[in-house]
Amino acid sequence: MTNYYGSQVSRLIEEFAKLPGVGAKSAQRMAFYVLKSPQERAEALSSAILTARSTAKYCKYCQNLTDEEVCFVCAGDNRDPQTVMVVESPQDMAAYEKTKEYSGLYHVLHGAISPMDGIGPSELRIKELLHRLDTDPPITEVILATNPNIEGEATAIYLSKLLKPLGVRTTRIAHGVPVGGDLEHVDSVTLMRALQGRQEL
Amino acid sequence: MTNYYGSQVSRLIEEFAKLPGVGAKSAQRMAFYVLKSPQERAEALSSAILTARSTAKYCKYCQNLTDEEVCFVCAGDNRDPQTVMVVESPQDMAAYEKTKEYSGLYHVLHGAISPMDGIGPSELRIKELLHRLDTDPPITEVILATNPNIEGEATAIYLSKLLKPLGVRTTRIAHGVPVGGDLEHVDSVTLMRALQGRQEL
Repeated sequence: MTNYYGSQVSRLIEEFAKLPGVGAKSAQRMAFYVLKSPQERAEALSSAILTARSTAKYCKYCQNLTDEEVCFVCAGDNRDPQTVMVVESPQDMAAYEKTKEYSGLYHVLHGAISPMDGIGPSELRIKELLHRLDTDPPITEVILATNPNIEGEATAIYLSKLLKPLGVRTTRIAHGVPVGGDLEHVDSVTLMRALQGRQEL
Repeated sequence: MTNYYGSQVSRLIEEFAKLPGVGAKSAQRMAFYVLKSPQERAEALSSAILTARSTAKYCKYCQNLTDEEVCFVCAGDNRDPQTVMVVESPQDMAAYEKTKEYSGLYHVLHGAISPMDGIGPSELRIKELLHRLDTDPPITEVILATNPNIEGEATAIYLSKLLKPLGVRTTRIAHGVPVGGDLEHVDSVTLMRALQGRQEL
């Protein structure tokens, strides 16, 4: 890249462009925004990055991101400690929390099995999940809520093979047509799975 | 926003979400990327923000962003000092530099006249442009290369009214059909302007 704006501005553009989903043009816009905004705004962003990077840790139980030893779910009252939902990321956990319909605990794998990307079971927080099975009261159900794509399915199958022999009830969230969508825009694999999973009214 | 990931992570997500073109989901992805990347990466981004914010200044001649007193164009050899192209932003200047066909100087307005956004002529670097007309050798042509939208056109008209009485040749970049495009996808105003601006072959 030719250095049109001076080396420090170019360096900032390059740093922004390393963030996921940020292309060259967006990185430029972000950099110019920082340059034009007051000094305090730049300092706030800069320090938020450092502070978050140094204080964020993984919940010692569920591996969710948190500032504390234990995340807000694991530390929460009124949660059913015998049900654990396995998700790929903290975002997925947040998505289920927003439904306000789930009162069990979570376990965040931080990824899914993906041989193409060199991610095997040992790269995920599976050991920590197995550890949690030795609790009192015991965990009675593990709900596999990994993504409904190839990697997520492979991970769910892998985990179910691991968990079932241990006598834990292992379930998978349902596949089907999304609520509020149009049937004509739903792909045929989903339509088929929705048909297979049909329920008595 | 519920604090799903601890307050420091949430603060980082909020800071990212303030950047232009960054929505809540992208901000989350960017924050998690920072948290998962090595400490040095977070430090590099953080310090690039602070350094760029504190070292970037405006070229004393053309108002382009630069680390030095004078930007690389104004400091460059082989530039025609009698021709000045007026652009809205450093990005626009960079776009014309990439053509490698323009050898004059630039003047960056840092915006365009937009009453809707409360931006009048005094918010732009117009005073600095007028200042530059008193140079020796004198500027003989000002090329108005503001954007081909309402604000850019208004700015071009405003500047031409200001500059022409001073005896400076004032030109506007041509409107027409973009090279490589399909006529059928070009809007009718552009088609009309292309017709009006047709040239003898």
